[in-house]
Amino acid sequence: MNDTTRKATPQVGRDLPRTESRAKVTGTAEYIHHLRLPRMLHARIVRSTVAHGRLVAIDTAAARAVPGVHAVYTGKDIRARIPEPYFGPAFHDQPILALDKVRFAGEPVAVVLAADSHVAAEAAALVVPEIEELPAVFDEVEAATAKTFVHDTLKPAGTFPDLKHLAGRRDTNVALDFRLRRGDPDAAFANAAHVFEHAFRTQPVMHVPLEPMVSVAETDGESVTIHSATQSPSFVRLEIARLLGWPENRVRVRTAFLGGGFGAKLYIKLEALAVACALLAKRPVRVALSMEEQFYTITKHASTFRIASAVDADGRVRARRCEVWWNGGAYADIGPRVTQKSGFTAPGPYDIENVAIDSYAVYTNRPPAGALRGFGIPQLVWAYESHTDMIARALGIDPLEMRRRNLLVNGRPQATGTIVWDAAIDTVLERTAARLGWDAPFERGTGPVRRGRGLAIGFKASVTPTTSVAMVTLAGDGSCIVHASTVDMGQGSDTILAQMAAEVLGIDATTVKVLHPDTDATPYDMATLGSRSTYHMGHAVVRAAESVREQLAAIAKAAGLPADTPAATLMKKRFGMQAGNLVGVGDFAAPYAPPDPATGQSPDITPYWMIGGTGAEVEVDTQTGAVKVLRLVNVADLGAPVNPAIVATQLSGAAVMQLGFTLTEDMRFDEAGQLRNASLAEYRIPGLADVPPMENEIVESRETRGPFGAKGVGESATFGVSPAIANAIEDAVGVRIDTLPITAEAVLRALRARDGRPLPEEAP
Amino acid sequence: MNDTTRKATPQVGRDLPRTESRAKVTGTAEYIHHLRLPRMLHARIVRSTVAHGRLVAIDTAAARAVPGVHAVYTGKDIRARIPEPYFGPAFHDQPILALDKVRFAGEPVAVVLAADSHVAAEAAALVVPEIEELPAVFDEVEAATAKTFVHDTLKPAGTFPDLKHLAGRRDTNVALDFRLRRGDPDAAFANAAHVFEHAFRTQPVMHVPLEPMVSVAETDGESVTIHSATQSPSFVRLEIARLLGWPENRVRVRTAFLGGGFGAKLYIKLEALAVACALLAKRPVRVALSMEEQFYTITKHASTFRIASAVDADGRVRARRCEVWWNGGAYADIGPRVTQKSGFTAPGPYDIENVAIDSYAVYTNRPPAGALRGFGIPQLVWAYESHTDMIARALGIDPLEMRRRNLLVNGRPQATGTIVWDAAIDTVLERTAARLGWDAPFERGTGPVRRGRGLAIGFKASVTPTTSVAMVTLAGDGSCIVHASTVDMGQGSDTILAQMAAEVLGIDATTVKVLHPDTDATPYDMATLGSRSTYHMGHAVVRAAESVREQLAAIAKAAGLPADTPAATLMKKRFGMQAGNLVGVGDFAAPYAPPDPATGQSPDITPYWMIGGTGAEVEVDTQTGAVKVLRLVNVADLGAPVNPAIVATQLSGAAVMQLGFTLTEDMRFDEAGQLRNASLAEYRIPGLADVPPMENEIVESRETRGPFGAKGVGESATFGVSPAIANAIEDAVGVRIDTLPITAEAVLRALRARDGRPLPEEAP
Repeated sequence: MNDTTRKATPQVGRDLPRTESRAKVTGTAEYIHHLRLPRMLHARIVRSTVAHGRLVAIDTAAARAVPGVHAVYTGKDIRARIPEPYFGPAFHDQPILALDKVRFAGEPVAVVLAADSHVAAEAAALVVPEIEELPAVFDEVEAATAKTFVHDTLKPAGTFPDLKHLAGRRDTNVALDFRLRRGDPDAAFANAAHVFEHAFRTQPVMHVPLEPMVSVAETDGESVTIHSATQSPSFVRLEIARLLGWPENRVRVRTAFLGGGFGAKLYIKLEALAVACALLAKRPVRVALSMEEQFYTITKHASTFRIASAVDADGRVRARRCEVWWNGGAYADIGPRVTQKSGFTAPGPYDIENVAIDSYAVYTNRPPAGALRGFGIPQLVWAYESHTDMIARALGIDPLEMRRRNLLVNGRPQATGTIVWDAAIDTVLERTAARLGWDAPFERGTGPVRRGRGLAIGFKASVTPTTSVAMVTLAGDGSCIVHASTVDMGQGSDTILAQMAAEVLGIDATTVKVLHPDTDATPYDMATLGSRSTYHMGHAVVRAAESVREQLAAIAKAAGLPADTPAATLMKKRFGMQAGNLVGVGDFAAPYAPPDPATGQSPDITPYWMIGGTGAEVEVDTQTGAVKVLRLVNVADLGAPVNPAIVATQLSGAAVMQLGFTLTEDMRFDEAGQLRNASLAEYRIPGLADVPPMENEIVESRETRGPFGAKGVGESATFGVSPAIANAIEDAVGVRIDTLPITAEAVLRALRARDGRPLPEEAP
Repeated sequence: MNDTTRKATPQVGRDLPRTESRAKVTGTAEYIHHLRLPRMLHARIVRSTVAHGRLVAIDTAAARAVPGVHAVYTGKDIRARIPEPYFGPAFHDQPILALDKVRFAGEPVAVVLAADSHVAAEAAALVVPEIEELPAVFDEVEAATAKTFVHDTLKPAGTFPDLKHLAGRRDTNVALDFRLRRGDPDAAFANAAHVFEHAFRTQPVMHVPLEPMVSVAETDGESVTIHSATQSPSFVRLEIARLLGWPENRVRVRTAFLGGGFGAKLYIKLEALAVACALLAKRPVRVALSMEEQFYTITKHASTFRIASAVDADGRVRARRCEVWWNGGAYADIGPRVTQKSGFTAPGPYDIENVAIDSYAVYTNRPPAGALRGFGIPQLVWAYESHTDMIARALGIDPLEMRRRNLLVNGRPQATGTIVWDAAIDTVLERTAARLGWDAPFERGTGPVRRGRGLAIGFKASVTPTTSVAMVTLAGDGSCIVHASTVDMGQGSDTILAQMAAEVLGIDATTVKVLHPDTDATPYDMATLGSRSTYHMGHAVVRAAESVREQLAAIAKAAGLPADTPAATLMKKRFGMQAGNLVGVGDFAAPYAPPDPATGQSPDITPYWMIGGTGAEVEVDTQTGAVKVLRLVNVADLGAPVNPAIVATQLSGAAVMQLGFTLTEDMRFDEAGQLRNASLAEYRIPGLADVPPMENEIVESRETRGPFGAKGVGESATFGVSPAIANAIEDAVGVRIDTLPITAEAVLRALRARDGRPLPEEAP
């Protein structure tokens, strides 16, 4: 029975249940976490307890003596096999295992291999690194001008032209200084009716993918296969090939479902270590992290944002100055891209003629920071939407009205000069306010528990330049496979890509199989990040499917058959029996103009704009500072939704994630740079009980350049959560919180300070 | 470092060492045999001890009670999940486990699953099938007219038009009756100067792949992955999809290196059982055979060939009648194709104007027979080249001269009417004779040990119609992967396909990676059989590589770069960085005209002709009958060799294999149909000490329709071995052996019979 006959039913726009639901519910879904290979060794990482120091020696004798230990390797062993063992997407700065220095507490300094993971763990505890401590620098603003340098020499990867000028620098912790100048902000500030200046901070947090990071490598010394829970299989292939000096075709990277990614599983995480160990041990090696170890591997940038606005008497913002410091930790990872890509939207979705932005990626002695759902945008929106509300309150303007007066609309230039299109910023704002019942009275409370409302909107550009390649193949019976290196990490990309291919081919999307990334079977894709897949890989899949459709049409035409003849019939015509394949290939890269290095100006900075708005209603207990979110309204412009049901889960999921970063999550370091709460017992992510009543709304919109009118959505509902809640708190109790997370203690301190009854200082 | 720069060095015709040599020597080469999956169960098959009987009941209670047994399944359990559990490439005749009947001793009737293979084996011994014996039929000639029917109803698969007329037949064991008539053989025989009629027989033998058959299936109930040591992954995919009623894209089949195939691992062998068990057990299941069990799984057709020739006074053959009975065993497998494809060459490579051929595929109660290196040709050549020598001797003509007078030459029609081209039959004959020193005197011996020489030539058509699809992809650094479902089972196809792709792309073949078959990653190929891959897949790979070359040329042209710009540079031009892929797709199906059902005539019966000649010098001990082969000369026309060194190993390997079938290998059954020697202790394949001094010669030739002038070679050196040795024995001691194998006993019996001192009859 073959149900792949071509149907005219619309496949795009359909609430198709996720194709993997059954496998996930029944426990048959594949995760790399479950992979066991014959003769596989388990790796256990030994980590530095020092935040910054010179690595003098590592005593591995006791560990080697543990029965069952196969090997103990240090950075020197790895360098003997890989002469330049430094990786990273922006800088080749991160050693596979620490070499001369350690740069953060938690940095891998050695690895123990054993067939039994418990043996490896026991032995790892016996490895003794000898480290000469050096002065450390932790704060991003201090580090930007400090004379303590995390890296002796800066080594840009060479892939980003705007980092080239940093090559060889030995006198800075700044890994990118993005600069944007538009109009004449100095003059505007000088002539302003009002000037407002505020500073906002965000804390370091972590992605907490519930499937911890895991990579397994196997090699015969001539080629290597890496099974990895990665969001970027194509990058891993390139980077491992570069590290080994091998051509790409000798490196195979495959992945499966991911138990969450959120940016944590991008670029190289454990893959280089797994490969190095497999080459040295000549056996398959599995490197898997505990939940605790993930905190030492990748984090979200803590940030400091100084924002100043020159404002007219009527609330029109005439100029804005933004200085953003991103705490990149010890290794740059993709931080410089965050610094630039997010940096240029730092003034917010407002039509401001005079803009100055300075955005700094800063090395510190913290765990490395990289991409995390929003790629810097939530940090920015936290600042600019708090700032907007503060201005509005100061001027006595309704915060909604304040925004309306300044909103960026289609056809107007964004700070980079790129003209904005298909960005329903106004609709998102209005729908957020309407959903929240902005103009309707509500019960504000009279006793110690008060209620308030806040809203916030943010926007984001998509990452460029990037390439996606896809193939669509038909088997002899006409059944269809989509070959794409997009990683389905829970966001539903398998389903979305199936829908698009099915729409083009006129078949039922449930009959389409979407392969999981395997660089032998699925072509190149830059990475699954930045809400780019629906648009970029979507375009590639559509083009590949169109090629197949054209091939089918040509067969039909040649055979004198109707154009809607089922594919199985046409395949038999073409190959004489149930045999053969049709293969369509499509690739896509969005047009892009890099920003001018001096001014940050570009006529074409992004393939599309993503818009998210959040409305929050909160309840604040003035006796404890406790904040309870009563309602969260998530509104987004994502173009035309390919699958509205999946979009809704993206909005909910993003909002809840940002809610954790807003209220509870916080990596707390002591003064020596030691993380004090690296466990889910002490680092509190939202549980089911923490999820407030939520409403999601997809605004009516269409991205004219997008596949079927769609654009990305995975991050949009993160943007406004934090400031909407802070704004609602001020609305409720009149205090302003400028630092995340908004703990009960922080609120209580603010209330007490306002009331002249300050709480005693926190013990360090 | 990337060594894939484009080079003008010829890649085709180069003695490139096999690309997998290092992996094989160092033990890192992947075989399915080594695969272990988490939660995998081992299957142990329970087999019928009865050759033909009605299956009344199977008592599995004792087996189920063995601790550690996961399940015991019978045919009924399988039918509950797969309503029509019958498979086969030509007939849907073979049940996954026996249902109502058993049809040969050794047929699978039940299967035991356990996590421990020893537990499964122990429990399997406790399963008690109750079988009502039926009369059995074993001889192929008897079975063709017997009233005992192996199958109640014939069920052609529907894929071969020439089997359709057999559908529903309930009164025959003949699974194909191929008929060819050319000219007027009756008249020619009536008017002949001489008529010679002989009969020849070949014994049942087995392929003995040193990696025994193994299949592992894993399924989530919605899709299935089959890891199988198979020569025909694309067929397995199609057939499993058909059995399950699933579209092809829900079935994935992958393989690795094969430790030999020789036709044993074609079509469905263990895959359907593994899949059925995995579906029922909801766990991965591994079905692996012992060496003994392979004898019950697939064999080479025993055969009886009655050949008659009408010959002129001067030795010119005017007419030939061929009647061939192929002992297909209990299930047809690909036997009907052997019957037809080989059948039409039964008169040999001779220019005979009047021909009658009747070739019968016959069901018997023996283990199934299928393809084995030569696809029936060695059985035919055994007969027609023994026959040719016997005629020559009878007429007092030199056997070489006898052949010269009758040889088929290019431009003349073969028995089917297809005009022969690019077939160096004459050169192969002459070079075989010259290498053997045919005209030179040699030491014939005088005592009890005598020497003699013999030669033989054979030819073979290639299988049609078949399709091969290939892809060639370039990574961002220009490194190249060939995607082909050709199975490298030791014949060197990975190397050959790399050479062809490299030649087209102007790169070094050692830098090309050839993927192993995986229906998710490598496109359709009919199967790796019949020496078809170099030609068919070669064409597909060349076309795919040409597509990539054209794409590169277009990039170079658009960029104003020289045509020989390295691919890596052009890829960067195309994608702006090291990113993306170029994908070329090629497919190939040779033209084909099916033979007329009444006459067997066709203007286009094969894509190419393969020619092999063997010269043998033997020593016969007349006191014991022992035959020692002193020299074996293997000469072949394979077009222009892609890799002469690999061709030489194909010639040697084929000759040694056929040497075993000639002298020692013989599946010996008792009267109840029980195989008595199913072990390598008792079934003697050639060891190193059995390999005679051999010389290989590739004649100068070129297949004008072939890729780079090449055609197939894997079987050619099997053709003439048996008759060359029999002819040499007659030359040495004057007795004719007409039945394989040529044991010392057979020779001694013939010598004693000739001398009037017959040996006593063999005990049954």
